[in-house]
Amino acid sequence: MSDYKVGIFGLGAMGFGMAGALHRAGLETHGFDINVDAVAKFKAVGGAEGVLDEVASTLDAAVIVVVNAVQTEAVLFGADGIAGKLSKGTAVIACATVAPDFAREMAQCCGDLGLLYLDAPVSGGTVKAAEGTLSILAAGTPATFQKAGPALDAMSAKVFALGDEAGAGSSMKAVNQMLTGVQIAAMAEAMTFGMTQGVAPAQFLEVISQCAGNSWALESRAPSIVNGDYHPLSAVDIWPKDLGIVLDIAKTAKFSAPITAAALQQYLAASGSGLGGEHDSAVAKVYARNAGLTLPGQD
Amino acid sequence: MSDYKVGIFGLGAMGFGMAGALHRAGLETHGFDINVDAVAKFKAVGGAEGVLDEVASTLDAAVIVVVNAVQTEAVLFGADGIAGKLSKGTAVIACATVAPDFAREMAQCCGDLGLLYLDAPVSGGTVKAAEGTLSILAAGTPATFQKAGPALDAMSAKVFALGDEAGAGSSMKAVNQMLTGVQIAAMAEAMTFGMTQGVAPAQFLEVISQCAGNSWALESRAPSIVNGDYHPLSAVDIWPKDLGIVLDIAKTAKFSAPITAAALQQYLAASGSGLGGEHDSAVAKVYARNAGLTLPGQD
Repeated sequence: MSDYKVGIFGLGAMGFGMAGALHRAGLETHGFDINVDAVAKFKAVGGAEGVLDEVASTLDAAVIVVVNAVQTEAVLFGADGIAGKLSKGTAVIACATVAPDFAREMAQCCGDLGLLYLDAPVSGGTVKAAEGTLSILAAGTPATFQKAGPALDAMSAKVFALGDEAGAGSSMKAVNQMLTGVQIAAMAEAMTFGMTQGVAPAQFLEVISQCAGNSWALESRAPSIVNGDYHPLSAVDIWPKDLGIVLDIAKTAKFSAPITAAALQQYLAASGSGLGGEHDSAVAKVYARNAGLTLPGQD
Repeated sequence: MSDYKVGIFGLGAMGFGMAGALHRAGLETHGFDINVDAVAKFKAVGGAEGVLDEVASTLDAAVIVVVNAVQTEAVLFGADGIAGKLSKGTAVIACATVAPDFAREMAQCCGDLGLLYLDAPVSGGTVKAAEGTLSILAAGTPATFQKAGPALDAMSAKVFALGDEAGAGSSMKAVNQMLTGVQIAAMAEAMTFGMTQGVAPAQFLEVISQCAGNSWALESRAPSIVNGDYHPLSAVDIWPKDLGIVLDIAKTAKFSAPITAAALQQYLAASGSGLGGEHDSAVAKVYARNAGLTLPGQD
């Protein structure tokens, strides 16, 4: 066991896997969540004991894996926020998808307290989170990268160092989410269009994955539609949130993004029709319903 | 030299490369085009001598590599069409992107004359055409595949046999074009959006190609924008044509395709503003102009 101590704040689908990866790497890992069951579950698989007020000042790094900017700010600066409890020089590794301006604001507020803020959104989903093989899109000072290093190494296969200033990680994450969200919906559009022309979903997956239409989104999501399995590895409701952030940033920059806007409408239709908790490939159900098609597993 | 004889009709960017691949495979290859310079150029690199009216009845396969359905029909059944000149049992390998219904109609008309029609659109672009490493999305009777075999082998790395009935190849091609066209434009949208957030095009290419936003379109087209090189390996004007075909088919099937429709508008804006003859990655110039950005090579 290393003497490097990590607190991880948020033990949801992503955070629980990342906590396990930190623990397996030999770091003393304390898990925190408003869901006490999640905390107990993590302690049962090796999470360290200790209450927040006793542990906080001893941490080398605080990893924040919550849903959005509001929750990130609450963890740091809310009523029982950790920012005032951490010691100077602690790395704050902020992993939620947030606007670049928010990341810059948090970095400033943390810096004022002597904390080392790393703008560090992640890419890779729950499977890679649990494996400790995420990609991390990170920006912060050299001292911050150095302090955060053992935690980053434990959680990721690849850390992209995108510069000294917080915000650059969140910018790249926004770009990645824009393209991924569009391409999952576009794959669903093309697969269901193919069904109207006699192309079965399994044949679509086999052939298009070897042609110019291929993408990470297709390889990752098309099998779930082919198998009729909508277990939410990554839920539909991620996309109204993340594409909403992207289009808010774009609007501020007066950037016209018509393809992203069209994709967002399809996710909103999926969420609005009760599919928000299903795997994001369930956006295909919107297309199928609109065209009178029956997807695999629906008959 | 094999005694298998091929005529290739259409010596444009794709056809000229495919003709070369047929010749290099040892097949006696006759090239035809309304552009006499292209015919002379092919003869200079090994194309066989002989005028159409003498050669046609001796061909084992006629490969048609023209722009669209109108030209395909003209080659076969126009004023000087070849359908009546070919011998029974000749394979007609039709490679243009066309509607599945058109492919079925041509197969019927050719079948009535004893010709073996292969619905055989290709994927892979001019580089793979010249290498003889295209993917061919083919549908036709077993006898047709057998007769066409030597020509298909010479032109392709992979032949997808999509069934006995013409139309299935064109259906799959439409699906592939839908997704490829969307993903090239989406890549341009995300890359230029990133520029508004301080992400340079080269950094976008380096990072997103290793993240969930990756696609064949990104790997194939992003380098051209990074390098400011819009030499038309595949022109902008391909997409108003091919996405137009896709959306016509979708309309007939009452299939709503909002993401494809949004992508088409961006290509139309590119073509309408004078970029139709540039590489299709030039759709990024529409986004850049709309957002007041300067792409690499534009300053």
